[in-house]
Amino acid sequence: MRQFLLEDIGHGDITTDAIFSNDQEGRGVFVAKEPLVSVGMKKVAANVFKLLDENVQILQAMEDGQRAETGDVLFEIIGPVTCLLNGERVALNLVQHLCGIATLTAAFIKQIKGLPVQITDTRKTTPGLRILEKYAVKVGGGSNHRFNLSDGVLIKDNHIAACSSITDAVKLARSRIPHTIRIEVETDTLEQVQECIDCGVDIIMLDNMTLDTMREAVGLIDGRALVEASGGVTLDTVRKIAQSGVDLISIGCLTHSAPAVDISMDWQ
Amino acid sequence: MRQFLLEDIGHGDITTDAIFSNDQEGRGVFVAKEPLVSVGMKKVAANVFKLLDENVQILQAMEDGQRAETGDVLFEIIGPVTCLLNGERVALNLVQHLCGIATLTAAFIKQIKGLPVQITDTRKTTPGLRILEKYAVKVGGGSNHRFNLSDGVLIKDNHIAACSSITDAVKLARSRIPHTIRIEVETDTLEQVQECIDCGVDIIMLDNMTLDTMREAVGLIDGRALVEASGGVTLDTVRKIAQSGVDLISIGCLTHSAPAVDISMDWQ
Amino acid sequence: MRQFLLEDIGHGDITTDAIFSNDQEGRGVFVAKEPLVSVGMKKVAANVFKLLDENVQILQAMEDGQRAETGDVLFEIIGPVTCLLNGERVALNLVQHLCGIATLTAAFIKQIKGLPVQITDTRKTTPGLRILEKYAVKVGGGSNHRFNLSDGVLIKDNHIAACSSITDAVKLARSRIPHTIRIEVETDTLEQVQECIDCGVDIIMLDNMTLDTMREAVGLIDGRALVEASGGVTLDTVRKIAQSGVDLISIGCLTHSAPAVDISMDWQ
Amino acid sequence: MRQFLLEDIGHGDITTDAIFSNDQEGRGVFVAKEPLVSVGMKKVAANVFKLLDENVQILQAMEDGQRAETGDVLFEIIGPVTCLLNGERVALNLVQHLCGIATLTAAFIKQIKGLPVQITDTRKTTPGLRILEKYAVKVGGGSNHRFNLSDGVLIKDNHIAACSSITDAVKLARSRIPHTIRIEVETDTLEQVQECIDCGVDIIMLDNMTLDTMREAVGLIDGRALVEASGGVTLDTVRKIAQSGVDLISIGCLTHSAPAVDISMDWQ
Amino acid sequence: MRQFLLEDIGHGDITTDAIFSNDQEGRGVFVAKEPLVSVGMKKVAANVFKLLDENVQILQAMEDGQRAETGDVLFEIIGPVTCLLNGERVALNLVQHLCGIATLTAAFIKQIKGLPVQITDTRKTTPGLRILEKYAVKVGGGSNHRFNLSDGVLIKDNHIAACSSITDAVKLARSRIPHTIRIEVETDTLEQVQECIDCGVDIIMLDNMTLDTMREAVGLIDGRALVEASGGVTLDTVRKIAQSGVDLISIGCLTHSAPAVDISMDWQ
Amino acid sequence: MRQFLLEDIGHGDITTDAIFSNDQEGRGVFVAKEPLVSVGMKKVAANVFKLLDENVQILQAMEDGQRAETGDVLFEIIGPVTCLLNGERVALNLVQHLCGIATLTAAFIKQIKGLPVQITDTRKTTPGLRILEKYAVKVGGGSNHRFNLSDGVLIKDNHIAACSSITDAVKLARSRIPHTIRIEVETDTLEQVQECIDCGVDIIMLDNMTLDTMREAVGLIDGRALVEASGGVTLDTVRKIAQSGVDLISIGCLTHSAPAVDISMDWQ
Repeated sequence: MRQFLLEDIGHGDITTDAIFSNDQEGRGVFVAKEPLVSVGMKKVAANVFKLLDENVQILQAMEDGQRAETGDVLFEIIGPVTCLLNGERVALNLVQHLCGIATLTAAFIKQIKGLPVQITDTRKTTPGLRILEKYAVKVGGGSNHRFNLSDGVLIKDNHIAACSSITDAVKLARSRIPHTIRIEVETDTLEQVQECIDCGVDIIMLDNMTLDTMREAVGLIDGRALVEASGGVTLDTVRKIAQSGVDLISIGCLTHSAPAVDISMDWQ
Repeated sequence: MRQFLLEDIGHGDITTDAIFSNDQEGRGVFVAKEPLVSVGMKKVAANVFKLLDENVQILQAMEDGQRAETGDVLFEIIGPVTCLLNGERVALNLVQHLCGIATLTAAFIKQIKGLPVQITDTRKTTPGLRILEKYAVKVGGGSNHRFNLSDGVLIKDNHIAACSSITDAVKLARSRIPHTIRIEVETDTLEQVQECIDCGVDIIMLDNMTLDTMREAVGLIDGRALVEASGGVTLDTVRKIAQSGVDLISIGCLTHSAPAVDISMDWQ
Repeated sequence: MRQFLLEDIGHGDITTDAIFSNDQEGRGVFVAKEPLVSVGMKKVAANVFKLLDENVQILQAMEDGQRAETGDVLFEIIGPVTCLLNGERVALNLVQHLCGIATLTAAFIKQIKGLPVQITDTRKTTPGLRILEKYAVKVGGGSNHRFNLSDGVLIKDNHIAACSSITDAVKLARSRIPHTIRIEVETDTLEQVQECIDCGVDIIMLDNMTLDTMREAVGLIDGRALVEASGGVTLDTVRKIAQSGVDLISIGCLTHSAPAVDISMDWQ
Repeated sequence: MRQFLLEDIGHGDITTDAIFSNDQEGRGVFVAKEPLVSVGMKKVAANVFKLLDENVQILQAMEDGQRAETGDVLFEIIGPVTCLLNGERVALNLVQHLCGIATLTAAFIKQIKGLPVQITDTRKTTPGLRILEKYAVKVGGGSNHRFNLSDGVLIKDNHIAACSSITDAVKLARSRIPHTIRIEVETDTLEQVQECIDCGVDIIMLDNMTLDTMREAVGLIDGRALVEASGGVTLDTVRKIAQSGVDLISIGCLTHSAPAVDISMDWQ
Repeated sequence: MRQFLLEDIGHGDITTDAIFSNDQEGRGVFVAKEPLVSVGMKKVAANVFKLLDENVQILQAMEDGQRAETGDVLFEIIGPVTCLLNGERVALNLVQHLCGIATLTAAFIKQIKGLPVQITDTRKTTPGLRILEKYAVKVGGGSNHRFNLSDGVLIKDNHIAACSSITDAVKLARSRIPHTIRIEVETDTLEQVQECIDCGVDIIMLDNMTLDTMREAVGLIDGRALVEASGGVTLDTVRKIAQSGVDLISIGCLTHSAPAVDISMDWQ
Repeated sequence: MRQFLLEDIGHGDITTDAIFSNDQEGRGVFVAKEPLVSVGMKKVAANVFKLLDENVQILQAMEDGQRAETGDVLFEIIGPVTCLLNGERVALNLVQHLCGIATLTAAFIKQIKGLPVQITDTRKTTPGLRILEKYAVKVGGGSNHRFNLSDGVLIKDNHIAACSSITDAVKLARSRIPHTIRIEVETDTLEQVQECIDCGVDIIMLDNMTLDTMREAVGLIDGRALVEASGGVTLDTVRKIAQSGVDLISIGCLTHSAPAVDISMDWQ
């Protein structure tokens, strides 16, 4: 967070420093300019300003996960004007981005209402912001996939190629990874799905399969592994995919392409 | 960049470490899955992999600013498979994001073809990525606004309120900032525009004005200051705004809401 | 590693700087003063010296996992004497510690020869050295338990107390953690073991149980979960515990109390 | 310390975060499971938890240097359960290690009771923990040798070889080092000891000498320099060495091989 | 600031730690030993001590810019003696240096009394201290030139050579830099000055010109650009240069050669 | 060094980036504009440029300690123009400062020619530059006093006051500091000097004494301790002080007030 402030402030806010003295107080309010799912008011926005001045007062901060309508106050703060102006852009940049992710996630969740499936994120996150972005996905109603390459195993094409078979790759991985971690394998065909079942894979990813193939795969697997659908999922296609019976649907655009929501800082 | 790799790799890629030895070589290719403006192949993708292994070989890397069509090769690399797999996601996350920005910027530039106006970015960037994002805007044909609060002066509402008048705020700023920096003032009304002209402001921002008001403002200013239009500009509205005669149009969504373009890493 | 060198060198090696010029070359040899399992010659010792001078030459470096007898050469390096003297202590401190861990692990592995059980480490590692220490355990023939609190779930007494039952705690965890991660529960009694089986726990830890209870627990579980024995395991008790039929035995002293092995740096 | 917490917590304690809310309070107690010399309760354990939550309350913390018996409470803390669980392992790993060092040092000190000799540590410390470990040695009753290569001069074999004689090496060092620092020389023979006396060395180290030779050396030196014995000293041999009349005995195993003492965190 | 303390304290103040316990309080006073312009008592000295112990009490701290005579108290603090002794040297080193700069700047300002000219600093600052030094220049009555290479454009000889003419260099720069930044060109001759005027340069630097040439240049420019004199300006020459009619005089020695003023810390 | 470059370059050299492409090469030469003692050409200037581009070629670099006359070439480099322009100011700022220190030190050394006394620096250095500055003192012919509070003991007024006597303070320090470090005591009177002798102090500092008192003190001490004169020493007074028979003279202005020497970077 310090890095983010440094990036935006440089060696000082020369406009504000020229015009305001340190002892002028102000009150700022974050207002939703469009409907959104709130995230980060307490943990992110408040912290940005507190880093600049530990004595700012947070008058209100919407709970993570609450829905806001246009015009709703999300966050209200009192503190030195110099502090509020110095932190404004970084705080807004962060919460607009995170609320954008939570809002998009919630839209996906709405599409699958009533179906026993989880929406998960991916590792397609903005470098430097993964933990925050994955938190926003959870706030929006989604689940988290592995955080990084060390807390989950996902065996892909070229891992398999290197071992000559899924079975061998799985065996190798099982013998070398901590016993606390499940093994997931990416599959393109039903033959691969079958091999995964046979060698006791924990999670089977169906990568870019048609709906028909997915349904067939789910039938084949029949509860012997978790099933994850993946690949180009959109708000339009997510419900049909969910109806195929998979357990999880992972969606990259939740984190890599959610547009920022519009929030402004007003002064009172 | 090291931070980004650490974020994605954690304490190690347990899948790849279990399956590959360090001496297996591979060849990876970044392929455009949709039309895009390329940015970052040399300066970003190559560096990500070189940080992991300084001996990787970059066989090709598209020039920044070149347009790619679906299927075009953007980047090609040879190196240890472990290195390629460890760096893949970070490199892709970065270039998909940056190409997204350059591609969107280029779309705006196309809209204003033939008009004497510049498209600029804002400080509404992703925390941690500002320098890269502003570079992508330039590659897409745009210009850069100030980088941070210390290399430009932008006097806004509450700066003015604190000084009782634009004139006083400008005078104060001029006396305290380096002489190498111009003064820009944000205006909402023609009266404010007039006051800016009278006190010798260098750049006048027209904030969220109607097209008619903008045209009037441009007439009033008549070359005595640079004129910047700002506020909710879209691909649909940008040309009309440009035709109002302003010198610059600043657009936040270039950096805060450009969707990632689709690029995949294939193996050969 | 840089931190470690800084810690040992301070603002400079005043003895060596006073006596040697930068262009005097020397050859140093690490010699085992007792039987040991080698670890870190290539990845640790070589890197320490290369950080000080990238042009040092490593003439030999024993493979990780190889056994050395008293008098065996583990590592041989040529470079500026100032570099060798500056790096000597840090390099030795690290490899003596890591070889100590690998050697102790190998001693445990020897005790369970022929039995289908894994020896694993714990989170009882030296702060700052966990990745290296867990690597040394693997080199010594052991397996790794979770690396940190984010890549494994271990539900203990007070987690259970907070939820009123194991079943509830497991349900809660399952709904909130990534699907890529298994759930382990620490148990003290057979009743708890039974509850774990009933609610589908992936791994059941038998904490400080008697051999008889362990055997009973293994019978109860009957392959429906992995079984991990834990608590005060020594070289004397490990084989009996292994014979109880558990899948894994986790041993804290591998990393927190392995004595350093004796290695000296000789000059030639 | 932050690094140590990051190493253990990763991106978050997923077990605890799934089960506890932030507002549940708990009380934890560190209990000695074996007799030990306490060190680090105030300066280390308390700080670990305070880094996580500055509002935790430390109810008791044993003084550094106090002896604890099995069952004694060393440390008691009240705070959010999430904080206590997040900091538990790092705090324990540190104090178990440091108390281990202090306890072993105290055992050596007991052996030399009544003799005018100091027990000192060496630079054979765990990388990253030197300051803490040397502090633990002091708490256990020992003294500190130089902290790093820049705050003490120790002329060894190859320094001497480079100068052709001890006399020349000492002269060179004396002319180039700060006048605030003493010169120590490592000797293997009585001839070397004599040369040290002749050229005014401040401290003479007797390296791996027999008891007889040590006694002879002490006689030769006769108070004209401090005398330090060094090399493979154990609890069994330390008293005899001390009786030889040396001023200091430096012991590497104090820091590189002291086993962790057993301390557990109980909940109330 | 932390770095500065670490540089001075090393692994601990062994003198003070040996003699004082942590609970002894003391009162220290910074006294001017010569006339000076005060700077940094609140923002620098106070912060140095607060970093060591957040509970120290600052009883007085002279305002930035106030003149002090020999014997005046600049700063008074109460806190643990260990804290005061640990921070003393770093705090004094900083404020003696900064007051030296402010005092020298004020001497230059006195020389140009009544003339409409600004004294500015340069980039000839002490590495690591630029922001503080430029602040001291402002406190002494001077103005700041650009802070670094990214917040101002200064086109010099070899930039011009690379473009074949000033006109081309200026055109190129204007098209590529943010519109918020002015363009300054360094000139040696009146021909260059004329070219600058013709191509609309914002600021013209007269580098090492004679007084006569400067006067001529000012006449030529006639208000169409800001005029900055530069090169070897001293207290003896500054008034004559100011009288030539330039707008700004930049002076490197303000920051690179201002002698430290004498301030001592007394104890009460 | 990276920090220093970042401080000067900010987010980029916008002038140079606008005008030069990366592949234009240039040759730069550092020329002495006044007589000086050279220091830092190889270790500092070369490194600054190599950090920016590891492939620059250093054609010449004057040895540390060599005297240069006006017009002498100190350093010559070939590399990308962008690199040379980016590193120029930081490299010059550093070497001008360091050569200033070495040149002033050499002037003091010249004053004491033929006398058996050392000139030493103090801890009155520029924060962040101590190691470089102390190196420059050595290059100029001086010696180093302690580097920081942890590698030397200096007992001052208030240390003594806390212990009621010099004797007690020395005893306390001796019992708690490493045996590798000497004890120095600051004295104001001959009584204090006598007490220092009596309790075996290693180094006695005569603080701000008159020449007569210094001579008397030297007579009293009579070789039983090193004698250091301190306090307001100038080029005018240093020889007389040296003739009083002290062993060392410590001089703060060597590092806190040496004016930068004039060096320019010319292009060829």
